[in-house]
Amino acid sequence: MIDYQAILDTITNSLKHSAVKGEVPTYIPELAKVKDTNFGMYLNLVDGEKYGSGDWDKPFSIQSISKVLTLAKAVPLMGNKIFERVDVEPSGNPFNHMSLLELEKGIPRNPLINSGAIVIADMLVTHLDDPKEEFLQYVRDLTNDQSISYNEKVAESEARTGFNNYAAANLLKSFGNLINEVEDVLDFYFHQCSIEMTCEQLSNAFYMFANRGKCMRNTAHLTLNQVKRINAIMLTCGFYDEAGEFAFEVGLPGKSGVGGGIAALLPNEFTITCWAPGLNTQGNSYLGMQALELFTTQTNRSIF
Amino acid sequence: MIDYQAILDTITNSLKHSAVKGEVPTYIPELAKVKDTNFGMYLNLVDGEKYGSGDWDKPFSIQSISKVLTLAKAVPLMGNKIFERVDVEPSGNPFNHMSLLELEKGIPRNPLINSGAIVIADMLVTHLDDPKEEFLQYVRDLTNDQSISYNEKVAESEARTGFNNYAAANLLKSFGNLINEVEDVLDFYFHQCSIEMTCEQLSNAFYMFANRGKCMRNTAHLTLNQVKRINAIMLTCGFYDEAGEFAFEVGLPGKSGVGGGIAALLPNEFTITCWAPGLNTQGNSYLGMQALELFTTQTNRSIF
Amino acid sequence: MIDYQAILDTITNSLKHSAVKGEVPTYIPELAKVKDTNFGMYLNLVDGEKYGSGDWDKPFSIQSISKVLTLAKAVPLMGNKIFERVDVEPSGNPFNHMSLLELEKGIPRNPLINSGAIVIADMLVTHLDDPKEEFLQYVRDLTNDQSISYNEKVAESEARTGFNNYAAANLLKSFGNLINEVEDVLDFYFHQCSIEMTCEQLSNAFYMFANRGKCMRNTAHLTLNQVKRINAIMLTCGFYDEAGEFAFEVGLPGKSGVGGGIAALLPNEFTITCWAPGLNTQGNSYLGMQALELFTTQTNRSIF
Amino acid sequence: MIDYQAILDTITNSLKHSAVKGEVPTYIPELAKVKDTNFGMYLNLVDGEKYGSGDWDKPFSIQSISKVLTLAKAVPLMGNKIFERVDVEPSGNPFNHMSLLELEKGIPRNPLINSGAIVIADMLVTHLDDPKEEFLQYVRDLTNDQSISYNEKVAESEARTGFNNYAAANLLKSFGNLINEVEDVLDFYFHQCSIEMTCEQLSNAFYMFANRGKCMRNTAHLTLNQVKRINAIMLTCGFYDEAGEFAFEVGLPGKSGVGGGIAALLPNEFTITCWAPGLNTQGNSYLGMQALELFTTQTNRSIF
Repeated sequence: MIDYQAILDTITNSLKHSAVKGEVPTYIPELAKVKDTNFGMYLNLVDGEKYGSGDWDKPFSIQSISKVLTLAKAVPLMGNKIFERVDVEPSGNPFNHMSLLELEKGIPRNPLINSGAIVIADMLVTHLDDPKEEFLQYVRDLTNDQSISYNEKVAESEARTGFNNYAAANLLKSFGNLINEVEDVLDFYFHQCSIEMTCEQLSNAFYMFANRGKCMRNTAHLTLNQVKRINAIMLTCGFYDEAGEFAFEVGLPGKSGVGGGIAALLPNEFTITCWAPGLNTQGNSYLGMQALELFTTQTNRSIF
Repeated sequence: MIDYQAILDTITNSLKHSAVKGEVPTYIPELAKVKDTNFGMYLNLVDGEKYGSGDWDKPFSIQSISKVLTLAKAVPLMGNKIFERVDVEPSGNPFNHMSLLELEKGIPRNPLINSGAIVIADMLVTHLDDPKEEFLQYVRDLTNDQSISYNEKVAESEARTGFNNYAAANLLKSFGNLINEVEDVLDFYFHQCSIEMTCEQLSNAFYMFANRGKCMRNTAHLTLNQVKRINAIMLTCGFYDEAGEFAFEVGLPGKSGVGGGIAALLPNEFTITCWAPGLNTQGNSYLGMQALELFTTQTNRSIF
Repeated sequence: MIDYQAILDTITNSLKHSAVKGEVPTYIPELAKVKDTNFGMYLNLVDGEKYGSGDWDKPFSIQSISKVLTLAKAVPLMGNKIFERVDVEPSGNPFNHMSLLELEKGIPRNPLINSGAIVIADMLVTHLDDPKEEFLQYVRDLTNDQSISYNEKVAESEARTGFNNYAAANLLKSFGNLINEVEDVLDFYFHQCSIEMTCEQLSNAFYMFANRGKCMRNTAHLTLNQVKRINAIMLTCGFYDEAGEFAFEVGLPGKSGVGGGIAALLPNEFTITCWAPGLNTQGNSYLGMQALELFTTQTNRSIF
Repeated sequence: MIDYQAILDTITNSLKHSAVKGEVPTYIPELAKVKDTNFGMYLNLVDGEKYGSGDWDKPFSIQSISKVLTLAKAVPLMGNKIFERVDVEPSGNPFNHMSLLELEKGIPRNPLINSGAIVIADMLVTHLDDPKEEFLQYVRDLTNDQSISYNEKVAESEARTGFNNYAAANLLKSFGNLINEVEDVLDFYFHQCSIEMTCEQLSNAFYMFANRGKCMRNTAHLTLNQVKRINAIMLTCGFYDEAGEFAFEVGLPGKSGVGGGIAALLPNEFTITCWAPGLNTQGNSYLGMQALELFTTQTNRSIF
């Protein structure tokens, strides 16, 4: 019998006081204010057990982790048509996301890089009557927590400074791979990124990916086949240019965000989340990557 | 004694009825309406002689040819500071202009590709009190013709559909290489591209590049050294990915536009312009390139 | 209870007579002679059960599948020092393997692309006294089959025509990432690729990756941690530019070769191999990819 | 009347003692031995006047400057067929020569980058009975100096260490754009690069490019049209990634070599050479570039 609480606590204690913590990003002004001393973990077993350590109950900005949730919302609505407009290959290249988009004629490499997530956002703007409202309700339902919300200040902060996302959206539009207006799509996109959750809430939101498609309320949102595909995309594309490294060191499907969060999971077994705001040079949580590597090594649990 | 009129007429007659004319571009709706049967040439000797043939007196949209004129306007205002924000190397790559911008951290390859010209436009928006008005007046003065104007319909048409330019401007902004608002800079940029001139007017506008910096009104706008540098940029960068080909076949500094115009010159000798709206796959006037190649071969006049 | 024999037979029957079979590659003259009507599958359960269908007992050239075996041989010899000379990220780019090598200063993206496997070959040439002999013996031991051999004709055929590999090896050498002579390393590399196996033998060779590091003779070759890492590399990098697609459709770690073979596995459960010589445009077995997708979908077995 | 001797002497005196001299390259062991204090210039007017200053009569390795001479030798032999196998566009990209070759399916960007010059070498190996002997005789005839020779030690030094050129030649071969054996073509190529000349000899070798195709012995080697084209290629492609910069600052067609030499010319007027072994980061002579910039600025002579 594994003592999960002890493992989480040991990891938290050993990393929380680490001298090197990575850098809290400054390009989104609102996020730059978050302290780099925050550190939390949460483990949510499919069989119902739950374990938290450190700052597991403080809310943070989920940022790019939201891309998995918009993808999960879009998959049942659009089916395989999604993949006519977005590919499922890792992006590979650390430096030229825009150029890949150009080379590949406006088809983003995968739905978890910015340009791909903007295309998914465009699909939701098309298919939902009130996109922001309906998507938020979807996240609340998955998590079984009606208190989850957008942070309007963060959304606004990104809208004011997100020139790279405006560039990507306009480039998509120039290739005919954005149907709605740039402003409308990015308004939705900046809002999805601004959602705030605690480690606990996030591990609940990802529960369905470990639980064969059924969420915390036991509602079936995805088929087994859809779960498999989304998990595969997380594994190959969830960590920017460090996807291979994460698979190699951690061995779990997952997704990181520039807010310092990481959500990961072992199918049929558990979801696990970590939050530590300092980032490494690839834009993933510096301590979060280490925490998950320690967890999978100590528990010997991974998909491989 | 060379009979220039006869040479121009022969070229015009042989090319005007060419079965293959290239394609009039459709991505700017207003330009798509122009007939591909138009063909004009105009030769403006520094010693004062002038020769026109074909549709030399019909106005057309100068489009990217305007980039040389904004550069010439910016050079005396900013001096070598220009080249801290824009390089002077040929872009080389046919397919990924945005990616070069990304790779080179927001420094456009040269001032004659779109992203480079947008940076020049940004400089003029900063330095001029009434940018659109003052730039138009500058062009009118160079040309000694107060009738030259923007075509508001064309400018508006580009503003509605120029997503690629919005992408470039936002990408520049994300790298900190655009000081003014994207909308303001592009409004200026779309206007500069919308200027309409005849072959005669355009050959007059370029007169100062052949005449050691003095324009048609005999006003000195550029030093000898500035003329040399602008001519060098035209030669190495004036024809997109066909700059080498144009130097090789024609051997004159020049600039083309998607309106089908080409302006070229031999320093101390002449400016020559050509207009034929059908483009080759590189975006240069299909018959215009041939006309200038015939002209330099038959007259044996080139910088080489 | 799943009837694996019935599933394999059904897949074999449905695909064997498929009108579209992909193309047998012609660039290695010896391989061009193989008939595209061959089709075999073999399933090797960790608990000891075995199932074959179609041409499971005909030998074929394993080609790039050998890269997993040289990596497995190198890992215990070199440890993490391997990853100072080869990265573990997917290559992403379909078209410019050489350019990535150039951009990344001679560090191949991962050990399963040609340049990466050449670096691994260089390590084995350094560390083994008689590299070709010792590596062959290793493969025979893994498989528990002393009849496995190089095909000298195939090795020679590749040596005569493998200019791209000579280019890669020389480029590595120019960056200081190849210690031995180009000729010596490529002689080893062309031999490793020329190994011939049946589907059964190949499923046995890969047995240790599913069996926690222990081979068919029950010898421990790899630690659990080493197995996890090699499986992770297979999943993210095993199928050229289709790695994401394979993870998405099939959901198993695996590796393909231009001989038309694919080896894949579910940790702790089984290895599965398929052979069908016609390739898709990405260089993976056209029918083999389909066969494995059918198998994982029908059995609902994948790592996700 | 310009006092050319005084101008050359002034430039030589001001630069010879410059504290910053660039770096003598070390990757060709034989060249690493050359002292960075050497500095010579030579001016050869078409009307017969000649001026030297500094170390104008010391021999140095012409290296890549030889690429213009092999091109000039190939042009009359092959005509425009050359340009089916080599393009005439600037390479643009500072970092990925091999990748461009890959992207453009084995067609080098121009004949003055390594891969392009290797294709030209391949043509000469095909067309000449005794390629090394005949090419050397050609250079001696152009220069009217039978003492010019290959430096076998330098050629051998490059053959031992030129892995990047082996990579390029093999990549060309893999695309079918190299007809002869890699070894034979590179043996010729390493020899052409090893030719040694003084500034005086080099200015004589380039005389025909300024003299309408007629060499120092008054023999016509090239037509006017061929001269124009070769000069155009020099201007747009002669200085690696600094071609634009050289056109912009100097404004003459020319070619540099890693031996520290530069040869340039003004059509119908003069050839000028400079030698200073220290290189800038683009691989061009650091002081040589400055010397020519000073010369054209002070004399106000350029093609622009």
